Amino acid sequence: MAILTLNAGSSSLKVSLWEEGRRRLAAQVERLGSDARLSVEYGDDSMSRDIGQADQAQALDAVLSELPDTRIEAVGHRIVHGGPDRTEPERLTEEVLRDLARLSPFAPLHQPHNLAGLRAARAAFPEALQVGCYDTAFHRGHPWVNDTFALPRRFYDEGVRRYGFHGLSYDFVTTLLARDYPDLHAGRVIVAHLGNGASTCAIREGRSIGSSMGFSALDGLPMGTRCGQIDPGVLLYLMDQKAMQPAEISRLLYKESGLKGLSGLSSDMRSLLASDAPEAAEAVSYFTFRLAREIGAMAAVLGGIDGLVFTGGIGENAAPVRAQALETLAFLGLELDPGANAANAREIHAGPVPILRIETDEESVIARACARILTSSG
Amino acid sequence: MAILTLNAGSSSLKVSLWEEGRRRLAAQVERLGSDARLSVEYGDDSMSRDIGQADQAQALDAVLSELPDTRIEAVGHRIVHGGPDRTEPERLTEEVLRDLARLSPFAPLHQPHNLAGLRAARAAFPEALQVGCYDTAFHRGHPWVNDTFALPRRFYDEGVRRYGFHGLSYDFVTTLLARDYPDLHAGRVIVAHLGNGASTCAIREGRSIGSSMGFSALDGLPMGTRCGQIDPGVLLYLMDQKAMQPAEISRLLYKESGLKGLSGLSSDMRSLLASDAPEAAEAVSYFTFRLAREIGAMAAVLGGIDGLVFTGGIGENAAPVRAQALETLAFLGLELDPGANAANAREIHAGPVPILRIETDEESVIARACARILTSSG
Repeated sequence: MAILTLNAGSSSLKVSLWEEGRRRLAAQVERLGSDARLSVEYGDDSMSRDIGQADQAQALDAVLSELPDTRIEAVGHRIVHGGPDRTEPERLTEEVLRDLARLSPFAPLHQPHNLAGLRAARAAFPEALQVGCYDTAFHRGHPWVNDTFALPRRFYDEGVRRYGFHGLSYDFVTTLLARDYPDLHAGRVIVAHLGNGASTCAIREGRSIGSSMGFSALDGLPMGTRCGQIDPGVLLYLMDQKAMQPAEISRLLYKESGLKGLSGLSSDMRSLLASDAPEAAEAVSYFTFRLAREIGAMAAVLGGIDGLVFTGGIGENAAPVRAQALETLAFLGLELDPGANAANAREIHAGPVPILRIETDEESVIARACARILTSSG
Repeated sequence: MAILTLNAGSSSLKVSLWEEGRRRLAAQVERLGSDARLSVEYGDDSMSRDIGQADQAQALDAVLSELPDTRIEAVGHRIVHGGPDRTEPERLTEEVLRDLARLSPFAPLHQPHNLAGLRAARAAFPEALQVGCYDTAFHRGHPWVNDTFALPRRFYDEGVRRYGFHGLSYDFVTTLLARDYPDLHAGRVIVAHLGNGASTCAIREGRSIGSSMGFSALDGLPMGTRCGQIDPGVLLYLMDQKAMQPAEISRLLYKESGLKGLSGLSSDMRSLLASDAPEAAEAVSYFTFRLAREIGAMAAVLGGIDGLVFTGGIGENAAPVRAQALETLAFLGLELDPGANAANAREIHAGPVPILRIETDEESVIARACARILTSSG
């Protein structure tokens, strides 16, 4: 069976073609809305070309023109927000789509783009099964204390909750642990998904019980251009004393903060690690400090830690970030093997608590969900 | 030498008279602005009476009418915000006063009341030395990573920093540890100041290196009516999707959230612990969960923990809160002695890491600072 997986963001579209559980083609369109560029990898071949000003539908058309002639049975979509009740991937019916559109106010910078990709895929493949896979779903079993904020109850009831995100990545890691490290899977694991977005997840017996991300994709760890944890009093100050409007504050916290804001140089961890500027080193220190702090907090949530996993672009590739973050955490039994860490090995610990480096693959989680739903719906 | 200490809040005034380092009289006016009530303790005597609608100056007059006839040599003021540079108590000159007024935008709900109390005291005691003691001062040695947010640098430069508060309480506890527990004082201690306001502080060798409170008195732990840590995306949602104005959001987060918002019943921990309502128990669970999470984070900041101190009204008196918060923290060596905990003993641990319960006295810190400055200014 042939399956497409789609990840439609605000300025990018990622598509993979899967046959018999294997990725056959991976395509990506970047800089949507300005000078979009398509790149495709197909076996050992790769190509890329400019496609001009393109929206999600035009980007998908460009990708499809590169696909081999195959009947697509299902299209699986990464959707950031599934709301309070969705705990699993599901078939996208009209009713589900209406419901997902109603969740846009909870993720105004992401959900509308996800849904635009979805509409484009429905037009292109009217016969295929459309499947929604939610970044929130993995976390929906959080205990109430880690799902609520200390606001009047009506806010919780209307959906102001600590949803947590990056659920497809945590799902991938957890499934891999179940197969390759069953003892660890049965215990208490902290996973740090560190990419352009970043969060930590506290997992017990394969289930998420807490995450550093909350209601939006802003909270918790600092990110490429996002602020991470910040005092709500800062926002009141920006509104009251600086007369900033909501749209300005949103742009500041989503687009101009994080590593970019602190360094004044770049949102890209690779650039910062390669830079000699003191501001670059300081931005990295802030990132690793907040990560260490969150690992301590997650350990308290779990009542101890049996293993730590690094994943995501930074987590998988930035050995100095892993080393700095763990400098103060030997008291948790977390000690790196410097050689294994520098070599980006899978097992990088020298102390009593396993530390793993796992390359995440969110699209494979989507493809598996599609295959499962195709099979069960016969 | 006779010294007055003043703590002027938004709806209360607390005054103590000190002679030769001992508290001789303690007075308090509550419900300022509506039906104010004065209560005074003087040795074994106590009295209280209604004083009607009173502002800070009228409340101070009422207190002064109860004072014995003594020459006041210094008046010490608790001032919430000393700004980025004040690390010590100091004499309040005209220049300092102007500078403190300029800090009001950083603490608009507290600083103006502190300064109103100060003006009233200057008018009443024009000859006395006026001394400012800052709740931020104890924290001003924080490493940069724990002083900044991940915003563009210009915000740090203009004063948007993680100040931390309750510094007079942490100062009191640290001074007591230096005297009674010198080994602990030389190590890594987490202090949880849990009162109507609440925060944690990570202290190494007697110096604060981090606090759960940041820029404002809103961040970190949930409090009586304040939200504690919250996703900045929630504020954007309230502005964008609910069209709430800054003043409404401020009222929500400062006055209607925390224990009061979650329980729908009371902001008072004593009432919640005495209640049979499930919402009361849930609010307490949220409080203790967030406290445990912060203790884990502070342990990571310190690279381990040599001791834990509970202080403040809740920290000193609410044995069930201490017990619940420590339920998941045995992995840090934190274990309570249930009997000692229930009896509100000073030393309440049964495990390897000392857990102490210390009754804080912020006014004594102010009185000592006044005596020191009086002596040194000769």
